[in-house]
Amino acid sequence: MKTRAAVAFEAKKPLEIVELDLEGPKTGEVLVEIMATGICHTDAYTLDGLDSEGLFPSVLGHEGAGIVREVGPGVSSVKPGDHVIPLYTPECRQCKSCLSGKTNLCTAIRATQGKGLMPDGTSRFSYKGETIYHYMGCSTFSNFTVLPEIAVAKIREDAPFDKSCYIGCGVTTGIGAVTNTAKVQAGDNVVVFGLGGIGLNVLQAARMVGASKIIGVDINAEKEAWGRKFGMTDFVNPKELKGDVVDELVKLTEGGADFTFDCTGNTIVMRQALEACHRGWGVSVVIGVAEAGKEIATRPFQLVTGRVWKGTAFGGAKGRTDVPKIVDWYMNGKIEIDPMITHTLSLEDINKAFDLMHAGKSIRSVVVY
Amino acid sequence: MKTRAAVAFEAKKPLEIVELDLEGPKTGEVLVEIMATGICHTDAYTLDGLDSEGLFPSVLGHEGAGIVREVGPGVSSVKPGDHVIPLYTPECRQCKSCLSGKTNLCTAIRATQGKGLMPDGTSRFSYKGETIYHYMGCSTFSNFTVLPEIAVAKIREDAPFDKSCYIGCGVTTGIGAVTNTAKVQAGDNVVVFGLGGIGLNVLQAARMVGASKIIGVDINAEKEAWGRKFGMTDFVNPKELKGDVVDELVKLTEGGADFTFDCTGNTIVMRQALEACHRGWGVSVVIGVAEAGKEIATRPFQLVTGRVWKGTAFGGAKGRTDVPKIVDWYMNGKIEIDPMITHTLSLEDINKAFDLMHAGKSIRSVVVY
Repeated sequence: MKTRAAVAFEAKKPLEIVELDLEGPKTGEVLVEIMATGICHTDAYTLDGLDSEGLFPSVLGHEGAGIVREVGPGVSSVKPGDHVIPLYTPECRQCKSCLSGKTNLCTAIRATQGKGLMPDGTSRFSYKGETIYHYMGCSTFSNFTVLPEIAVAKIREDAPFDKSCYIGCGVTTGIGAVTNTAKVQAGDNVVVFGLGGIGLNVLQAARMVGASKIIGVDINAEKEAWGRKFGMTDFVNPKELKGDVVDELVKLTEGGADFTFDCTGNTIVMRQALEACHRGWGVSVVIGVAEAGKEIATRPFQLVTGRVWKGTAFGGAKGRTDVPKIVDWYMNGKIEIDPMITHTLSLEDINKAFDLMHAGKSIRSVVVY
Repeated sequence: MKTRAAVAFEAKKPLEIVELDLEGPKTGEVLVEIMATGICHTDAYTLDGLDSEGLFPSVLGHEGAGIVREVGPGVSSVKPGDHVIPLYTPECRQCKSCLSGKTNLCTAIRATQGKGLMPDGTSRFSYKGETIYHYMGCSTFSNFTVLPEIAVAKIREDAPFDKSCYIGCGVTTGIGAVTNTAKVQAGDNVVVFGLGGIGLNVLQAARMVGASKIIGVDINAEKEAWGRKFGMTDFVNPKELKGDVVDELVKLTEGGADFTFDCTGNTIVMRQALEACHRGWGVSVVIGVAEAGKEIATRPFQLVTGRVWKGTAFGGAKGRTDVPKIVDWYMNGKIEIDPMITHTLSLEDINKAFDLMHAGKSIRSVVVY
């Protein structure tokens, strides 16, 4: 079949809207009509050539929502007509990681996914006979895409695609960091570094679970208003601060935060986040993706005196299990998404979404097919 | 009163055995006759002038066992005749840290303890009218010492002092890192870096809780025999290895360890310990104390993919609560101490214990009064 898609033919070039050839689903695979997709920093990171493992030409996009249109042999968990969110972190429920009960980092199809291919080692996309690679196992910048059955989460049908697509990455990453990885509890003090799309979701998850102080840190003063919309109780702008940001946060939290979250990808900030934790029990969670080659550092004394350094990917969420729950939370009003979708575009305008992101003008842009 | 003590008059000089003046216990304090004391690397670290906060002249020693001889006003939890282990990490059961239930790092007397003084801001020790400082709130290199009531753990009377003193630091640090901080469970794979006194206790705690593979890592081939005595199932000597130690450990554990422990104090090893953890859930615990100014570093990707970096002090043990339990474990044969006490000396020979330690000739030397 044919599908309209925005293709990244090479790094550092705008996406091109073309008609691709798409093979139908093979065993264990499903064909999904993508109804909407968010544009995430990770897509830009790859398109900008910063990801050393980035493959071209490829169909980027990993934050989508759509409808199953066809299933391959052996598929039993979804059927045509089901509404789904593609999962760049699948959940096979069979591998050592899934069976451990301790992580969401399913390894079932990791090797081929990293190579831009389906589990059988081939691509479903081609253009004029040339292979086009899949991206993060999703490729939601295509109106139709093929996914392994284990890489789709079935969601309720009343959830609007143009909002629920954001749950495919940003929302789940921020919310899950709080509920799955950190397990923040009512009354805890929380500090969130970086109030972009992820940070705002961390804020609202902290609010949802009843955190006490919810402190946002950002060098952009305009983020204060954004933060306050999603539960932030205090704002710290390091640029407007005379002293050290860690000292200020320790003072604000009377000894340090119970939990801190880095949503910046800046390794200096990651260190501040750790050191702003409370002695004895504070936990710092790295969410942001750092530049290649950058390292985090601290004095081991920080750990010996009880601070814990951890990280999270996809908010520690088991996709098929947890994503439908987060959709419920959105539909039941426990979390908000609508105000974060600052721009809705057509596929033809997708490059504008990257421009908006680079200019810091959007929280989240969504393409609706 | 008078007490015989080994005094550190200045850094980098041998201890001198002299008779000190000792004031009796004030409110909330107890006088303890130290019956035996271990000599720990931390004592040597201070005596060697490496601890920038080390105070002289002082009575070192923090790993003792003895008998309460007198109690000051208001003391209710112990009485003369009780057998006790001094606690450099006290347990007041009243401060924010104690009440949190999340840490053993009681802060009740931290400020004065760090200054070598009792909680009222004065020292009980003097020599020819000159103040001699307390050390780590314990000063067990004195036959008699005064301690806050909250800094002694009452233990059973049938425990031999010349063995149970080791529970005052090394044993509890190693055992507690496994049982309190890491919470290793039956079937887990464990890697221990550095098979000194702490490392051996980590090994035997891993054995006690039913760990599966218990891998020891040391650049001293002689440590293999020591490790095997305490439950080590595999030995890796990085000096005899052709490839990378992390790769070897990941292979031995089929993907990485569930828990790793650094007992070396070397920040390069701390990084290896983190990176030898299993993707998704491996936890690395820093026990060793690093040189002043040294930092640990890694790529944040290690954390984002599910490894956790934490640390432990005094094995996360709440002194008055947990130390008596560890004494029970020793007396009931759950853990061994006797084979680790390689040298027993008189106070007059205490400097020999430091020589043995520096030469790597002892696991633990104990002075019996």
